[in-house]
Amino acid sequence: MEEYRVLEIKQSVFADNDREADAVREGLKARGQYLLNLMSSPGSGKTTTLSRTIEALAPELKLAVMEADIDSDVDAATIARLGAKTIQLHTGGMCHLDAGMCQQGLDGLAASDADLIFLENVGNLVCPAEFDTGACKNACILSVPEGDDKPLKYPLMFQVCDVVLVNKIDVAPYFDFDLEKCRANVAMRNPKARVIPICAKTGEGMGEWYDWLRAEVAAWKQA
Amino acid sequence: MEEYRVLEIKQSVFADNDREADAVREGLKARGQYLLNLMSSPGSGKTTTLSRTIEALAPELKLAVMEADIDSDVDAATIARLGAKTIQLHTGGMCHLDAGMCQQGLDGLAASDADLIFLENVGNLVCPAEFDTGACKNACILSVPEGDDKPLKYPLMFQVCDVVLVNKIDVAPYFDFDLEKCRANVAMRNPKARVIPICAKTGEGMGEWYDWLRAEVAAWKQA
Repeated sequence: MEEYRVLEIKQSVFADNDREADAVREGLKARGQYLLNLMSSPGSGKTTTLSRTIEALAPELKLAVMEADIDSDVDAATIARLGAKTIQLHTGGMCHLDAGMCQQGLDGLAASDADLIFLENVGNLVCPAEFDTGACKNACILSVPEGDDKPLKYPLMFQVCDVVLVNKIDVAPYFDFDLEKCRANVAMRNPKARVIPICAKTGEGMGEWYDWLRAEVAAWKQA
Repeated sequence: MEEYRVLEIKQSVFADNDREADAVREGLKARGQYLLNLMSSPGSGKTTTLSRTIEALAPELKLAVMEADIDSDVDAATIARLGAKTIQLHTGGMCHLDAGMCQQGLDGLAASDADLIFLENVGNLVCPAEFDTGACKNACILSVPEGDDKPLKYPLMFQVCDVVLVNKIDVAPYFDFDLEKCRANVAMRNPKARVIPICAKTGEGMGEWYDWLRAEVAAWKQA
């Protein structure tokens, strides 16, 4: 089993998070590294989605993962088993990551050769959306059991996300979830957001997500 | 259809939230009113659970509801239709309610004759747990699709809750959810927490929850 480090991250000392976030992105750009900030409610399937993504893309891209969590190491242990370089970030009760905390994670991860780094943010549809982490793009997962009305109730999360993965579509028959209504609710918050229905457990729909990631990484390295 | 008010609540001005929370409880006690703070992740079924609870308990108790949400009125509209006195609290982006905000809601609700008042907190397993709202007790809902490991990852929420409703047990066959593991994880955070498996949609298990509420309200009025 791969090892992973646990890092207790500290509250940021930077007054201007947006400026700090730009500095994080400049560093990533200089190293040719793409960072994706993955957000969602607790239990929507971030870790399962990441696990499957790592298995699919590891043959072609060098991957690394920062797992943010308030307290446990459950997710880092799962991800490290797949062979990607992993660090567990403990936020010490804090409900989000900002750019300074993300940079602490990148420094601790020490994966300067990775092409694609995932930041699995704290499970929370509210606070993480308020802070630019310095990632190249934001993604969020909305799982079918949560309901198609979530973009109405958590507006900022859907405004700031470039891609929305609608996960657990295998259980759609057992829930009152309307995919077209969900698409319309996302579009109301952010008409440019790409919506990709997936089932991370069975792999359904994941090809479109991998293609999106491949294109993003390639464009970031070239630009 | 019953009407409901929408109240834009303001950030609290009180430095000492715990003292303010005690003042909220003293007011409730003086009026013989029981306030329950209901918390959970987005989409775990707070509004459905409340709807069914109102239908069941309305013949015997006078009920009122404060619906906290960042932006929408979806939940208040649903609840008001059932005839309980309802107010929609808009937090203006804030991720939780504290005691001062709860008191603003109680003042706006103006339901001094209600026996049992529910506060549906913002959907978030992190921040709401950090603030005593002044409620008599805290309840949280953990839904089956979120996974049995949530008490490991969101420790404070389960530490502060007196009762944990495990919702959506009707879909348990389609998820890797182990109820005994869930009970053990809750007990690790809070051995005194009562765990009640329910399905708010079908009504399964709800009788135990109603009995808990009945006993709580009666004890609060007598003490």
